[in-house]
Amino acid sequence: MIQITFPDGAVRQYEAGVTALDVAKSISEGLARKVLAAEVNGEVWDATRPIEQDAALKLLTWDDKGGQNTFWHSSAHLMAEAIEEQFPGVKFWVGPPVENGFYYDVDLGGRQMHEDDLKAIEKRMNELAKQSNPYIRKPIAKAEAVAYFEEKGDEYKLDLLQNLQDGEITFYTQGGFTDLCRGPHIPHTGFIKAIKLTNIAGAYWKGNEQNKMLTRIYGVTFPAQKQLDEYLQMLEEAKKRDHRKLGKELSIFTFDDDVGQGLPLWLPNGTIIIEELEKLAKETEQDAGYKRVVTPHIAKESMYLTSGHLPYYQDSMYPPMELDGTKYYLKAMNCPHHHKIFAAEPKSYKDLPLRLAEYGTCYRYEQSGELFGLMRVRCLHMNDAHIYCTKEQFAQEFRAVNDMYLKYFKIFGIEKYVMRLSLHEPSKLGQKYIDEPELWIETENMVREVLKETGTPFVEVPDEGAFYGPKIDVQIWSAIGREFTLATNQVDFAQGRRFKLEFTNHNNEAETPLIIHRAPLGTHERFIGFLLEHFAGKFPAWLAPLQVKILPISDKFMDYAKSLLAQLKKWDIRAEIDERNEKIGKKIRDTELMKVPYMLVIGEKEQAEGKVAIRRQGKGDMGTEDAAVFIENLKAEISERSKP
Amino acid sequence: MIQITFPDGAVRQYEAGVTALDVAKSISEGLARKVLAAEVNGEVWDATRPIEQDAALKLLTWDDKGGQNTFWHSSAHLMAEAIEEQFPGVKFWVGPPVENGFYYDVDLGGRQMHEDDLKAIEKRMNELAKQSNPYIRKPIAKAEAVAYFEEKGDEYKLDLLQNLQDGEITFYTQGGFTDLCRGPHIPHTGFIKAIKLTNIAGAYWKGNEQNKMLTRIYGVTFPAQKQLDEYLQMLEEAKKRDHRKLGKELSIFTFDDDVGQGLPLWLPNGTIIIEELEKLAKETEQDAGYKRVVTPHIAKESMYLTSGHLPYYQDSMYPPMELDGTKYYLKAMNCPHHHKIFAAEPKSYKDLPLRLAEYGTCYRYEQSGELFGLMRVRCLHMNDAHIYCTKEQFAQEFRAVNDMYLKYFKIFGIEKYVMRLSLHEPSKLGQKYIDEPELWIETENMVREVLKETGTPFVEVPDEGAFYGPKIDVQIWSAIGREFTLATNQVDFAQGRRFKLEFTNHNNEAETPLIIHRAPLGTHERFIGFLLEHFAGKFPAWLAPLQVKILPISDKFMDYAKSLLAQLKKWDIRAEIDERNEKIGKKIRDTELMKVPYMLVIGEKEQAEGKVAIRRQGKGDMGTEDAAVFIENLKAEISERSKP
Repeated sequence: MIQITFPDGAVRQYEAGVTALDVAKSISEGLARKVLAAEVNGEVWDATRPIEQDAALKLLTWDDKGGQNTFWHSSAHLMAEAIEEQFPGVKFWVGPPVENGFYYDVDLGGRQMHEDDLKAIEKRMNELAKQSNPYIRKPIAKAEAVAYFEEKGDEYKLDLLQNLQDGEITFYTQGGFTDLCRGPHIPHTGFIKAIKLTNIAGAYWKGNEQNKMLTRIYGVTFPAQKQLDEYLQMLEEAKKRDHRKLGKELSIFTFDDDVGQGLPLWLPNGTIIIEELEKLAKETEQDAGYKRVVTPHIAKESMYLTSGHLPYYQDSMYPPMELDGTKYYLKAMNCPHHHKIFAAEPKSYKDLPLRLAEYGTCYRYEQSGELFGLMRVRCLHMNDAHIYCTKEQFAQEFRAVNDMYLKYFKIFGIEKYVMRLSLHEPSKLGQKYIDEPELWIETENMVREVLKETGTPFVEVPDEGAFYGPKIDVQIWSAIGREFTLATNQVDFAQGRRFKLEFTNHNNEAETPLIIHRAPLGTHERFIGFLLEHFAGKFPAWLAPLQVKILPISDKFMDYAKSLLAQLKKWDIRAEIDERNEKIGKKIRDTELMKVPYMLVIGEKEQAEGKVAIRRQGKGDMGTEDAAVFIENLKAEISERSKP
Repeated sequence: MIQITFPDGAVRQYEAGVTALDVAKSISEGLARKVLAAEVNGEVWDATRPIEQDAALKLLTWDDKGGQNTFWHSSAHLMAEAIEEQFPGVKFWVGPPVENGFYYDVDLGGRQMHEDDLKAIEKRMNELAKQSNPYIRKPIAKAEAVAYFEEKGDEYKLDLLQNLQDGEITFYTQGGFTDLCRGPHIPHTGFIKAIKLTNIAGAYWKGNEQNKMLTRIYGVTFPAQKQLDEYLQMLEEAKKRDHRKLGKELSIFTFDDDVGQGLPLWLPNGTIIIEELEKLAKETEQDAGYKRVVTPHIAKESMYLTSGHLPYYQDSMYPPMELDGTKYYLKAMNCPHHHKIFAAEPKSYKDLPLRLAEYGTCYRYEQSGELFGLMRVRCLHMNDAHIYCTKEQFAQEFRAVNDMYLKYFKIFGIEKYVMRLSLHEPSKLGQKYIDEPELWIETENMVREVLKETGTPFVEVPDEGAFYGPKIDVQIWSAIGREFTLATNQVDFAQGRRFKLEFTNHNNEAETPLIIHRAPLGTHERFIGFLLEHFAGKFPAWLAPLQVKILPISDKFMDYAKSLLAQLKKWDIRAEIDERNEKIGKKIRDTELMKVPYMLVIGEKEQAEGKVAIRRQGKGDMGTEDAAVFIENLKAEISERSKP
């Protein structure tokens, strides 16, 4: 008998050779029907692979990233089987899962693949899936594997085999298709209930332009048709909400060749959003006892040698400016500058916690191929702060940071989020991780407790902490269900020591503070990109660049329109009059395109009675109201930062 | 007879050979007593030099920079005479006027000059001044001049003579001292009524460290003892108000070796001032119809080649960062980025005037020897904006900019200011100045009219315009009478064309806008440096980092103190409690040092009656008041941005 330990700590006895699927069945048939793979001692395995020794076991379903990846990788094999039937002699390179689905790179031997072929392959995949063919794992000797692909004449798989050691090679077979593959795979093809092949593209072999161009076929699959339908609908919606498209239509930002790639210029409308976000952050941080600082965008090489960013982070930094024998770097992060402010004046325990905040602009040199709208840029306006505290203050400070994240999620209507808590690996202390075993355990525990106590959804990720402490990556989902990485939140025991930061503790001794790095609103670039998609450009009134458009039915009502405008401006409400000599229908349509929250239609009756006919973005006609009442309501909507 | 034309356009006839002093006497004896020199056809001359031909004449007195410089340069000669008497064989290099006074670099032949010597020289200068010895100009042949200094053994003057042409060499003699000098000088030494030698320093010959170290003796002189007394008092006061000293004492800013010279880090107190200034600017600019933008701090080389900053301005820029074959520069000015925003979307006359504002941070590489506290830095947070307008809109826009300057002067209690209007020189059109003679005249006239109409004090400076248009340098004086250059304000016809900026005019034709560059609050760096001196660190309440300090007489009143604090915070008033267990006297003294506008002393009586005992910075005890009344008054003082 062997001992199987479950994630909740429970331990059960099984016969050696038991599979994860057997274990699942021993719990319930319903569970077994959902198991796609299993994590055995932290490694993802086939659910059907025998477990011979005591092991920690986690059953993986569609809800686990590991389950999804296994599902999509198996789908790539299924697609390969269908392709091989339709394009005999096709040669295969690799077929990995990706963020949303999978692809396979193939060499069609000079043949072309068209839209029609995709349909046919999709159809055949559906037939093969219905056969519920098992994915069969077979360890194989290297010589035998080489002989197999030599006979098949597949130079790509032979290339892969070159780098594999005898004894670690496996084949996987389902139906009539066999592939060189380390796995894992789902139990059988019957799990794949919904299939969509999405795209054909060219891809150089090994990503090298000197090599042959292969054909890359993308697809996505799901365990249920409903999921695929929802996914396709989400894609359709995402296209409409593309932040680059909306950013242009709503005059939010622009790029310019002479300024440089990845360096957005914020137009007046985008700048209003930036300033509203900064106002929110400053208010929130002021209430939370933060102090603001302003630091230069450059520093000398010596500072980044102290921090350790040089040489390790050098590739992500712009190259130095060298003058009078000194190298200056554009800052890629604000922390070292803040540490210098901490160090500028002597500190005692009475000064802690010290929370230094700055909307600091950092520059990171992303490869040009990686740049994407506002999502991947080279200029980052960061909602940054560093909290310097004692060990005793840490838990409370960390909790306050977490609360701030949750407060923001509420304001922006972010309903789905998860914190990825990355932990250290004890065997790598002193190598990958700073050698402070007690501080690691202590802070990890405190962080975990805070997340539990506040009911914040989180997952733990072993062996992915930062060098200097546990790290939280904040994942959020937009209104249409797309995932974004918003920010990270880090505990730091190392930088304080590197910068020789000290405070005098209660015992009159010098002590190094703990540091929390946090940026709840991430960067303006990524967050505004996210918000454009999340709100489909229909910002809540407090964020909308233009909040009210006054539409006089004719010039006769211009004076009334102007008096309304003056009243709105008095309360700093962003308003304009459509002074064009156009029909009211056109004025409404044009304003609708700019997604202005409120339109006030002004005619004879409204003027006579001091009223406004209100149209709310997305809701249409809201009836007529006293102008003064409308203004009062809007003031409240703005100051409360209500959602639409 | 020759014709003398006066600055007001009047013309009078005089005998050829008349001197400026003769002319002055012909007007009034009182005037003649004040004339120090004269501008003859734009060149500064001795007032005693005969004028042989028709000329434009401006009499220069102490009130003219040219008069002052002549006075101080003549004082340097007077000092030289006294030095030569006390240090026979001394050799002289140069003795120019400087911002406040003059110096002379001398070679004492190994002798040392001490404080006592200065006293003796000063005494002797006073005696020589009383002799009213005339400064006598004598044109001299080069050979004769060389012979004179060879005999005297003065290799420094011989070095100067090498670079002078025969026919342009003059000697000046007063009393027993003769110098090689192009002049001009005041009529006689009797004008010099008050003398103070201020400093002895070392200075390498020609500023080159390889050369011999000379002795530099600084002095300052005035036409009246009262002026000297006032000047010395101002110096004394300026020392107390030194912005570097106050900046440290009040925790406003700091520098750090690892960040770099000339790159201030703004501490929380300084950041509060920055944010209040930005708030003021944003409110003011919003009321004036500006739109805000945000642009990156870098751009590609191509942008600065288009703007023309490269190569002409290259020496003042940080060197490029070169990556993937592209050179990126840190921006030294915001204009090109703003032009790109103008160009991002098509514009029509309906979009103009477009006023784009940004507190843009620029970087300029000042030589390390030039750096000085916040006054000369390498990082500049600039209150920048660019106004794009039609020719027809120009006068009104320029006037609005001027009004904004005046508004700010009033808020900050800047009572003395002058605009230096720099004009083009018609003969240099197409070379030093863009060849648009009509636009030059038109805009210069419009600018001049605005300055006149608004009663703004200004002086005209010929031949100092920017390449692309007339320029205004804004000079302001602090409360203690020191002069600062705050900002410049420029009209620009060139950049619009270089960047191919266009709008569609009423005739549906493409037209290039005029551009006004303006920055009324200059840079945070220089302006906060100025304000520290101007207010001696005693900021008005709205700018003060800490506005109220609550001083409980004992711990018994801590609850009341806390309730007061909560009430103040509710209105965003920056307040703190002095919670230390110290005597009230010490609490008051310590708070006084931090120059907090209001202290509230809290004891038995105040707590019982809901009152506060108020101490106002600089005014002391202001009596007792209801807490609510105090808060209402302070709210008004802050929101009105009242001066102390």
